[in-house]
Amino acid sequence: MTNLQWVPDAGSDEETHVPSYISGYFDGEGCFSVALSPRSNLRVGWEVRPSVSVSQNGGRAEVLWETQSYFGCGSIRPDRSDHTIKWEVRNCALLRSTVLPHFRRYPLRSSKQEDVELLTNICDRMAGGDHLVPSSLIEIVELAALMNPSGIRRYQPARIVHELRTQMKA
Amino acid sequence: MTNLQWVPDAGSDEETHVPSYISGYFDGEGCFSVALSPRSNLRVGWEVRPSVSVSQNGGRAEVLWETQSYFGCGSIRPDRSDHTIKWEVRNCALLRSTVLPHFRRYPLRSSKQEDVELLTNICDRMAGGDHLVPSSLIEIVELAALMNPSGIRRYQPARIVHELRTQMKA
Repeated sequence: MTNLQWVPDAGSDEETHVPSYISGYFDGEGCFSVALSPRSNLRVGWEVRPSVSVSQNGGRAEVLWETQSYFGCGSIRPDRSDHTIKWEVRNCALLRSTVLPHFRRYPLRSSKQEDVELLTNICDRMAGGDHLVPSSLIEIVELAALMNPSGIRRYQPARIVHELRTQMKA
Repeated sequence: MTNLQWVPDAGSDEETHVPSYISGYFDGEGCFSVALSPRSNLRVGWEVRPSVSVSQNGGRAEVLWETQSYFGCGSIRPDRSDHTIKWEVRNCALLRSTVLPHFRRYPLRSSKQEDVELLTNICDRMAGGDHLVPSSLIEIVELAALMNPSGIRRYQPARIVHELRTQMKA
């Protein structure tokens, strides 16, 4: 980007390139995350829930609808926690086939791209069933622990890894 | 955007289009605003301070530096109020010559573009000296009142207009 500077006088019929716009928008507002939740009905005891989402004030939801249209998937619903509206894809197959490939072709230009790479890695492992095997799930939890370092975690990765190791010894 | 959907299989050497990325980023994180502050040293009593800014967590400031490089202007400094880093241009001439023309060529795709149009209108009026004449300043205040409807205002536009009208009668 340092080689491309905006020159207002340069005449051009150039129009907005939507894929780049989407990536810029997600660099600001997007969230690439993996939630880990205890599930007594699962043999490994923990559910891995990958997600790509973007939130916006209700009054400015236009870009969410455009995001949904662009990716051809994702739900749009109110986020009660903070009075925003959220577009989100949680389905691992859709993330791998549609959402994450976009962010590999048009990468985020901040360090948030590291979350894209980690999420891609985790979804690839899930496609191979790694989230259902304690020893492999530990590796997923350790990768998830590297994501969104400033975010709030309900369950500490270290605690989950400890539980899984205990489970493996039993 | 509804006519352009992401097709992951389509082979392409396409690269990110930085101007579009910048607009997408500002649609999420950017702020187009006009602050109004009482100034006893000004004859009209109020200073009009237009601004375009974008904030980011310190750990993800890369895009701020790229923004500065792209526009070739703007300061980058810590925003003590919320532990973020902010790129900002306040100079009316720079806003008119460099920053706002970008957002007219690559418009925001949400209703935030209305703030771009209002700010452009206000900066054009300021270039004509309208902010120094009470009757014209009232019109600027009324335009500023339409911006960032969800934002917090230190001074209510209605109060400023009332003061200016009183001043005009005196």
